[in-house]
Amino acid sequence: MNSNWTQETMRILYKDTDQMGVGHHANYVTWFEMGRTEWMRKFGLAYSDMESKGLLLPVMNVEVNYKKPAHYDDQISIFTRVTEYSKVKIVFEYEARIYESNERVEKGVVLEPYGELLASGSTTHMWLNQDWKPARLDKKAPEVFELLKKELQ
Amino acid sequence: MNSNWTQETMRILYKDTDQMGVGHHANYVTWFEMGRTEWMRKFGLAYSDMESKGLLLPVMNVEVNYKKPAHYDDQISIFTRVTEYSKVKIVFEYEARIYESNERVEKGVVLEPYGELLASGSTTHMWLNQDWKPARLDKKAPEVFELLKKELQ
Amino acid sequence: MNSNWTQETMRILYKDTDQMGVGHHANYVTWFEMGRTEWMRKFGLAYSDMESKGLLLPVMNVEVNYKKPAHYDDQISIFTRVTEYSKVKIVFEYEARIYESNERVEKGVVLEPYGELLASGSTTHMWLNQDWKPARLDKKAPEVFELLKKELQ
Amino acid sequence: MNSNWTQETMRILYKDTDQMGVGHHANYVTWFEMGRTEWMRKFGLAYSDMESKGLLLPVMNVEVNYKKPAHYDDQISIFTRVTEYSKVKIVFEYEARIYESNERVEKGVVLEPYGELLASGSTTHMWLNQDWKPARLDKKAPEVFELLKKELQ
Repeated sequence: MNSNWTQETMRILYKDTDQMGVGHHANYVTWFEMGRTEWMRKFGLAYSDMESKGLLLPVMNVEVNYKKPAHYDDQISIFTRVTEYSKVKIVFEYEARIYESNERVEKGVVLEPYGELLASGSTTHMWLNQDWKPARLDKKAPEVFELLKKELQ
Repeated sequence: MNSNWTQETMRILYKDTDQMGVGHHANYVTWFEMGRTEWMRKFGLAYSDMESKGLLLPVMNVEVNYKKPAHYDDQISIFTRVTEYSKVKIVFEYEARIYESNERVEKGVVLEPYGELLASGSTTHMWLNQDWKPARLDKKAPEVFELLKKELQ
Repeated sequence: MNSNWTQETMRILYKDTDQMGVGHHANYVTWFEMGRTEWMRKFGLAYSDMESKGLLLPVMNVEVNYKKPAHYDDQISIFTRVTEYSKVKIVFEYEARIYESNERVEKGVVLEPYGELLASGSTTHMWLNQDWKPARLDKKAPEVFELLKKELQ
Repeated sequence: MNSNWTQETMRILYKDTDQMGVGHHANYVTWFEMGRTEWMRKFGLAYSDMESKGLLLPVMNVEVNYKKPAHYDDQISIFTRVTEYSKVKIVFEYEARIYESNERVEKGVVLEPYGELLASGSTTHMWLNQDWKPARLDKKAPEVFELLKKELQ
């Protein structure tokens, strides 16, 4: 079962555009990282806390599918959820979407992503200890493992 | 049939590292772009020429698999080849590899990638015209289509 | 006379850190751009509107002074104001500051920057037309020039 | 007295462009870092060696003056030299220049920068120990201090 989605909003900076006049594709990997950070914070696994516990969560795989370009100053939302987890790994899914609004959109937890789809993707991560060796989450940080179980039951 | 590989070398900048002490994963998408640019130049399809012909080649999909982290000042090579092409799309494959050397490695065309594998991946692109509508390469730039056919026969 | 300050908040992303464990210095130039964009929007000169009017506002000079490093996931604010303007140029001043808070800080207009100073700086810009030739703001977009006059009187 | 200049060449990547169709100004700070890294390596102070000695060299100030924009795929050179040093700090000067050439330009030491000037700038750094406290270079790494004295006499 999948977790709920979190929503985090941002605007496309001038630096993020390229000479095609769109948000450069490489930026989505960073925007997904922003979405993932907020998902983790929201569900009690703030990544800075993970590192304090001696856990690293490097990316093993990233995939992005681009549907429609974003433009300078567009307000876009990154929707993030967890689709899979085990004692050794975790998989996040992302959707970048745009909608017309002059208001700043609040971030939070939502049932379904909304707005026009720009890109979707996923990242797969492994839990490692500080020597970059695989760590079992249920041993190393059982309280975190319980939080994931509860959220994804 | 696949094309030959090109090799392009670079060093990991301090800005590219993160607080895990490794080259941040999002950078590989940019490094692959550097590899792709050099593949295209080497085989007569310099991307700046494509844009002069009114063709854009945006990314539809990117995937990266991470095997081993790179560190600050590591000299790494991006190996690039084309694995698939048609009148409307083209697929590039990449390998980022490292090897110990004090010499600056020349870029060029190689038969096989060498060095220790850091990451591999691919990007899928569509040929578009300047209105972002699909373009048929054999109609819009037949000489480029012929170059691809010759290189990948 | 100087304009009021605007405040825009953000968090330091993992990608923005380097292996010293701090927010890499080059990022401040981009964060200042984010601050400038919001100042312009707030005072009725949204940069996307400027480009619609055929005006570009490239950076002629940037300076940053670093006082104290920021760390991963720190919530920082970019305070921005205009300190000088004429028919041909405009100068922005910036302060990046941090403060302890679990709440998301609202952006807006403030009388004085607050929090601990991380970095300060400035950017100088020239108004250009789309051929990259100097443009006189009072001729090309008198309504924008009036807005600046009013805000900085 | 100033040191000799080093030259390091690179091409403007698509990611480095913005929708004005030029190399985005924030990138120069990173390109200067690349130039500084090569200056240090060339004169026996490879920055990775400095960190092995327990020394950090963070940036206290950066300034960039922009003269002329660079464009996608332009081959540009970063010329770097040291203009000032003491037991506690060091100042680097940079020039980004462009020239027409189809050949890959070798990096190395040059008497004078050449090519058309795009941007110039400087960075000021302090030597710190790993606790981010000021370090005296002549005490902490006298051999590095002697190298600087010799190069800048």
